[in-house]
Amino acid sequence: MSEYVEEELESAGLRFGFQLKKRLYSKTSPFQKVEVVETSHHGRALLNDGFYMLTERDEAVYHEMMAHVPLFVHPNPERVLIIGGGDGGTAREVLRHPSVKRCVMVEIDGAVVDACREWIPQTASALQDERLELKIEDGVKFLKESKEIFDVILVDSTDPIGPAKPLFGEDFYQDIFDHLSEDGISVSQAESVFYQEDMQKTLACLTSARFQWMSFYNFSNMAYPGGLWSFMLASKQRHPLKDLNVQKVLAADLSCFYYTPEIHRAAFALPAFQKERLKPWIKL
Amino acid sequence: MSEYVEEELESAGLRFGFQLKKRLYSKTSPFQKVEVVETSHHGRALLNDGFYMLTERDEAVYHEMMAHVPLFVHPNPERVLIIGGGDGGTAREVLRHPSVKRCVMVEIDGAVVDACREWIPQTASALQDERLELKIEDGVKFLKESKEIFDVILVDSTDPIGPAKPLFGEDFYQDIFDHLSEDGISVSQAESVFYQEDMQKTLACLTSARFQWMSFYNFSNMAYPGGLWSFMLASKQRHPLKDLNVQKVLAADLSCFYYTPEIHRAAFALPAFQKERLKPWIKL
Repeated sequence: MSEYVEEELESAGLRFGFQLKKRLYSKTSPFQKVEVVETSHHGRALLNDGFYMLTERDEAVYHEMMAHVPLFVHPNPERVLIIGGGDGGTAREVLRHPSVKRCVMVEIDGAVVDACREWIPQTASALQDERLELKIEDGVKFLKESKEIFDVILVDSTDPIGPAKPLFGEDFYQDIFDHLSEDGISVSQAESVFYQEDMQKTLACLTSARFQWMSFYNFSNMAYPGGLWSFMLASKQRHPLKDLNVQKVLAADLSCFYYTPEIHRAAFALPAFQKERLKPWIKL
Repeated sequence: MSEYVEEELESAGLRFGFQLKKRLYSKTSPFQKVEVVETSHHGRALLNDGFYMLTERDEAVYHEMMAHVPLFVHPNPERVLIIGGGDGGTAREVLRHPSVKRCVMVEIDGAVVDACREWIPQTASALQDERLELKIEDGVKFLKESKEIFDVILVDSTDPIGPAKPLFGEDFYQDIFDHLSEDGISVSQAESVFYQEDMQKTLACLTSARFQWMSFYNFSNMAYPGGLWSFMLASKQRHPLKDLNVQKVLAADLSCFYYTPEIHRAAFALPAFQKERLKPWIKL
């Protein structure tokens, strides 16, 4: 009988997981329990409080879609802020853009960074890049205190429970707006399309009024329940589809696992039920 | 402790399932074990040999995407053949098209039909439509013996194990070609994007040479492992994107759960890894 490391979403009546090969790391930080396991078919996996954050096999989907969608829409992204993202995967994709001169990453939980540096270099190796400044502190507090302006802000957070809860509050989205340049773009992790109806509405409502363009875009992955997952994109000027620079994507030749210009456009086509749910707030 | 009905894909190192409320039906037919369970959050679910075939909560995604993509591309679909599809969901969506005069459904396992008629009227009620002719027999044999020609053929099969295995053979795809009208279109269930690399290649290779247009298109659902799933579309004349009749979709006003004209187009945008894998055979 094989052993599986399963996560249970009892409120959704759902359980799933991957076959375990070996437990590699476990530490309870002041914020959460951080674990790394080796799976049989999905490479190494990071779990926070028993929920899959990434597997080596499919993490590229999430990280490419979070980074490349805004970075290929913004005409010249030089300054990027990542809130969360302690595994380093989002930073890795951001730093593949040569225009990026400075990437500040504010991760609240140093244990996540330590675990990934030791066990998941596939994502954490990006943290050594000279253009990256890593701060182990509260992203909400950072935004309140910093005066720095960014071209792109990525909210690469966990679910809105535990340490990431304030990242789903109203003040936070005002602060993001205030720290974006005139043509700035923000992207936030926006939960499950199938399972998080209320959360998506809340995010949309908090954000829509402040930005000229706001929508959700979807991607499919193996490590998050329900498979279909969302980002929310909010932009001051640049249109997430009309201002996609396809020539720049092709010239960059990133050889992505998932992202293509066609996938970029397709991701904004929302299933009928999701479109209906979010219609009052979408500006596209 | 809640009880879950889980399916295990040991060869993929994956296990998942839904919370059980009540077991409603179980019968071992000559072909497979057929079960219906009531889940806590996903309505009733049909399982064949322990694998989820559908849940009431999300079955519309699969059935809409299988039926409406070809039926809104074909200019006047009158005669439709469904191989498999015993739950009735695909027939339900096909029969929402008023142009359809005759829908033949050939399901090998009468136990699936019986189980759904008794326990899942949400899909099986369509089987009472006057335009539907239901045959409980082998679809492979039906195609060999019948002389009838169809505008659209839908291969709504289970995975290529057990009773559905011959549906993934070379003869079968020649027979489909031969039973399609001059501008006919076929769509086949084409397995998991993430987990069934070889199967998708085999299907593509078997089919591509015979048709003018051939591609895969994807959809996201809750009941199939990995979330992201595929159909393969093969068409003699009509282009699956250029010949999409958006006016007809809007006029039909089907109020779908998932399908929209934008989703139709977006579904053909394949993730980079899938596009790379299937490139030799895709004709679009």
